[in-house]
Amino acid sequence: MQQHTFPNGLVLVAEAMPGVQSAAFTLLLPAGAAYEGADGLNLGGGAATMAAEWISRGAGPRDSRELLTALDNLGVSHAESAQTLHTSLAVATLGRNLEPALEICADMVLRPHLEDHEVEPIRALCLQNLRSLEDDPGTKVIYELRRRHFPDPWGRPSPGTAEGVTALTPDDIRHFLLETYRPNGAIFGVAGAIEWQRLLDSVGRLFGGWKPRREPKVPERPAGPSRDHILRETQQIQIALAIPAATVASPDYYRARAAAAILGGYSSARLFSEVRERRGLCYSVYATYEGQLDRAAMLCYAGTSAERAQQTLDVMLAEIKRLGRDGVALDELDTMRAGLKSSLIMAQESSMSRSGSLASDWYFLGRLRSIDEIAAELDLLAPETVSAYAARFQEPSDLTILTLGPTELLLPAEP
Amino acid sequence: MQQHTFPNGLVLVAEAMPGVQSAAFTLLLPAGAAYEGADGLNLGGGAATMAAEWISRGAGPRDSRELLTALDNLGVSHAESAQTLHTSLAVATLGRNLEPALEICADMVLRPHLEDHEVEPIRALCLQNLRSLEDDPGTKVIYELRRRHFPDPWGRPSPGTAEGVTALTPDDIRHFLLETYRPNGAIFGVAGAIEWQRLLDSVGRLFGGWKPRREPKVPERPAGPSRDHILRETQQIQIALAIPAATVASPDYYRARAAAAILGGYSSARLFSEVRERRGLCYSVYATYEGQLDRAAMLCYAGTSAERAQQTLDVMLAEIKRLGRDGVALDELDTMRAGLKSSLIMAQESSMSRSGSLASDWYFLGRLRSIDEIAAELDLLAPETVSAYAARFQEPSDLTILTLGPTELLLPAEP
Repeated sequence: MQQHTFPNGLVLVAEAMPGVQSAAFTLLLPAGAAYEGADGLNLGGGAATMAAEWISRGAGPRDSRELLTALDNLGVSHAESAQTLHTSLAVATLGRNLEPALEICADMVLRPHLEDHEVEPIRALCLQNLRSLEDDPGTKVIYELRRRHFPDPWGRPSPGTAEGVTALTPDDIRHFLLETYRPNGAIFGVAGAIEWQRLLDSVGRLFGGWKPRREPKVPERPAGPSRDHILRETQQIQIALAIPAATVASPDYYRARAAAAILGGYSSARLFSEVRERRGLCYSVYATYEGQLDRAAMLCYAGTSAERAQQTLDVMLAEIKRLGRDGVALDELDTMRAGLKSSLIMAQESSMSRSGSLASDWYFLGRLRSIDEIAAELDLLAPETVSAYAARFQEPSDLTILTLGPTELLLPAEP
Repeated sequence: MQQHTFPNGLVLVAEAMPGVQSAAFTLLLPAGAAYEGADGLNLGGGAATMAAEWISRGAGPRDSRELLTALDNLGVSHAESAQTLHTSLAVATLGRNLEPALEICADMVLRPHLEDHEVEPIRALCLQNLRSLEDDPGTKVIYELRRRHFPDPWGRPSPGTAEGVTALTPDDIRHFLLETYRPNGAIFGVAGAIEWQRLLDSVGRLFGGWKPRREPKVPERPAGPSRDHILRETQQIQIALAIPAATVASPDYYRARAAAAILGGYSSARLFSEVRERRGLCYSVYATYEGQLDRAAMLCYAGTSAERAQQTLDVMLAEIKRLGRDGVALDELDTMRAGLKSSLIMAQESSMSRSGSLASDWYFLGRLRSIDEIAAELDLLAPETVSAYAARFQEPSDLTILTLGPTELLLPAEP
C-alpha cells in the first residue's frame, strides 16, 4: 500500500494487486449533497447530482458524445454519482487503459464544458429519477430516515427534491462545482494492475495544477422528527430505524460493527432468525452500520404487509433492546468474525472494491488498514466489550423511527 | 478448465484461478419454475421458490438454525434461489472452507428435512415477496414481459402467484423436489482456489450416490398476448419490449449479442444516447440479450413519466427499426468489442462470476469457452454480418410490448 499527498492537498492511495489484469480507481470529491447547503451556496437539493451528470457532458477536447464513446472505447465501466458526503467517480478497466481513463477523468474534473444547453436534459433526467424513487419505497424510506436522523445537511438525499431540481439555474450548478470540486479534501484510491511510480507521475501530471480552495462552512441544523410516517399507497409498509453508533475513528468502532452484524448482518443473525425464518414476517430485513466522519448510526430495515407490520416493528424493537440487555455470546461473536473476515478477503480480490476501501480508509482515518490489522482487531473483540458497547440499546433514547405506507403503526413514545 | 461427468449424469466443470484465496461454486439444478407445469406435477406458481427455501431449513445432521449458523461459521455467502429454468445454489467462501461448504450443500440437496411445520413461515415469506414485487414495478414489468413473450411455461416468473403460493401443500412441494432435484441435468461450476483432483474426489464422494430420475415432460402452451398493459397507480410508466433473438448455440449468437449491446448495452449506446442523454426522457433505459436453450430474446426497458412515455416508446421503436434498416458501423462495433472484452476479463477475476459462467457455458453449449475463444469470435464480427442479422428488426413482426402504469400508450398494431 502506497500513499502520497500532493502540494495542492490531493491524496493518492494505491495498492498493486498481483495476478490481476484489471485496474480501478475511486475519486472521492468533497462535493456531496450536504455541501449544497454550505454558506454562500444555499442551493436547493439536487445540485450535487446535476453537477456530477454535467461534467460527463463534454470535457477537455471532447464533446458529450465523444467523451462517453472514448470511455467505452477503453472498455471502461464508470459511474459518476453524488452521495451525501462525496461525489465519486468510480472507474474500472484493464490495467493498460488506466492512464487514458485517468486523462479523461482529469478533463471531467478540471476542464468540464458545462454548456447551458445540457442543463435541461439533465434536469429532466433528475426529475425522472425522483419519480422512479417514488416507485421504489424501500430505497426512499432509507433516504428519508437519514434525513430525519442526522442533523441537516448530513442526511440530505443526493437525488434532491423536485422543487430544488426545478429551481436550479446553470449558474447555480456552476457555482456549486467551483466551490466544491477541489483537490484539498479529494482522495484518489487506485488498485489492481498498477505500477506505483508511474501512477504517481501520471496523477501528478494530470492533477498537479488543480488549485486548492478554502473548505466551505456548512451550517448545521437539528435533526428530526424522530417519529414520522410517510403516507403512500404501497402494497407493503416500510419500517426503518436508526440509532447513533460509534464513529469509524472511535475505539468502539469494531464493537459497533459487531453489534450491528450480530443483530442483522448475516443469514443466522438475530433479526433474520426471529423476523424472517421463524415467523415469516417479511422477506427483507437487515441491520447495518453506516459511518460519517463525525457521526454514525446503526440502521435497521424491514418491508412487510400492513397486517404484519406492527408485529414486525415490535419484534425489531424487542431484539434491539435484548441486544442491550443480554449482550452477545462468544459463539455469535465467532460467527460474526468468520463472516466479516471472509467477506473482507473476498472483497480485496476485486480491484474496484479495493480502490473504494483505500479511499474510504484515508477519509475516515487518515491512514490505510491492512486486512491483517482488521483481522487482528476482530480477534480482540470479546463478549464483554461488545456487550458493554451494546448496553446503550437497552433503553435507546435517541432512536429515529420512520414508516412509509398506507397505514400508521403504533410507535414507542419519544423519551 | 476441467470437466467430468459422473455416472449419475452430474457434470462438474471447474477452473483453478491462481493468486486468489476465495473459491465459489454455482450448482444449477433443472428445477426452475418452468417445471412446476411438468406432466404429473401441474403445480401453481411458487413451488420452485418454496422448495429452494425449504431445503435450507434443516438438512443432514443439522436443524434449520444449525445449518445457517454452520454456513455463517464458514464465512460463506450463499443464495438458494429459483429462476425460470434452474434452481441455483450459489456459494462463495475461502478456498480452505470449500469442502465443508460442499458437504452442507450435499445435505441440502440430498438430505433435506422438509418438515411440515416449516412450510407456513415459508409461505408467509413468499407472499411477502410477491407484495414487495408490487412495490417494485421495474422488476415486475420484466417478469410479466417474459411471461407474455416466451411460450408458457418458459416465461413463468419464479416468485409465482399469490393463488399458487396459497394453494401449495407440503406434499406438493415435496413432489416437486422429488421430481426435479436430480443429478442428470445438474451442473456444478467451481472456480477459485481449488485443486482439481481433490475437488473431483469430494464431489464424487458427496454426490455420487444421488440417483438419477427421468427428465419430466413439460407441455408447452402458446405465448401472448403480444400487446398488453398492466394498470397500476405508479409514478412512472414502465415500458418493456421483447423480440426473438438467435440462441446461444446458434452461429448468429455473437451477432445477436452485438446488436443488443449496440442498441443499449453501454454508456454511448444508441438508446442511452437518444433517450437518456439527448432528450432526458428517462433515467433508466437499456437493451439486453437473454438466452434459453431453445429460444432467446432481446429485451428493452425504460421507465418514465406519463407525459414522456409515448415519446419514449416511439423513440425506442424507431431505434430498433433503424438498427434493422441501416445496420451498424465499424466504429460502433469496435466500441462494443472493447466493452465486452474488458468486462469479460474483469468478470473472470471474480471466482463467483467465473463459477457461474462455467456452469452456464456447459448448460448452453455442452463445452467450456476460454476468454481467448470469445475474444476471437468478437474479432470476427464485421459490420456486414451484424447488419445482416439485425435486418430482422426492420419490421419486427414478433414483438411483444408490455406497459405498466396509470395510463395506456398507443402501441403499434400487431402484424
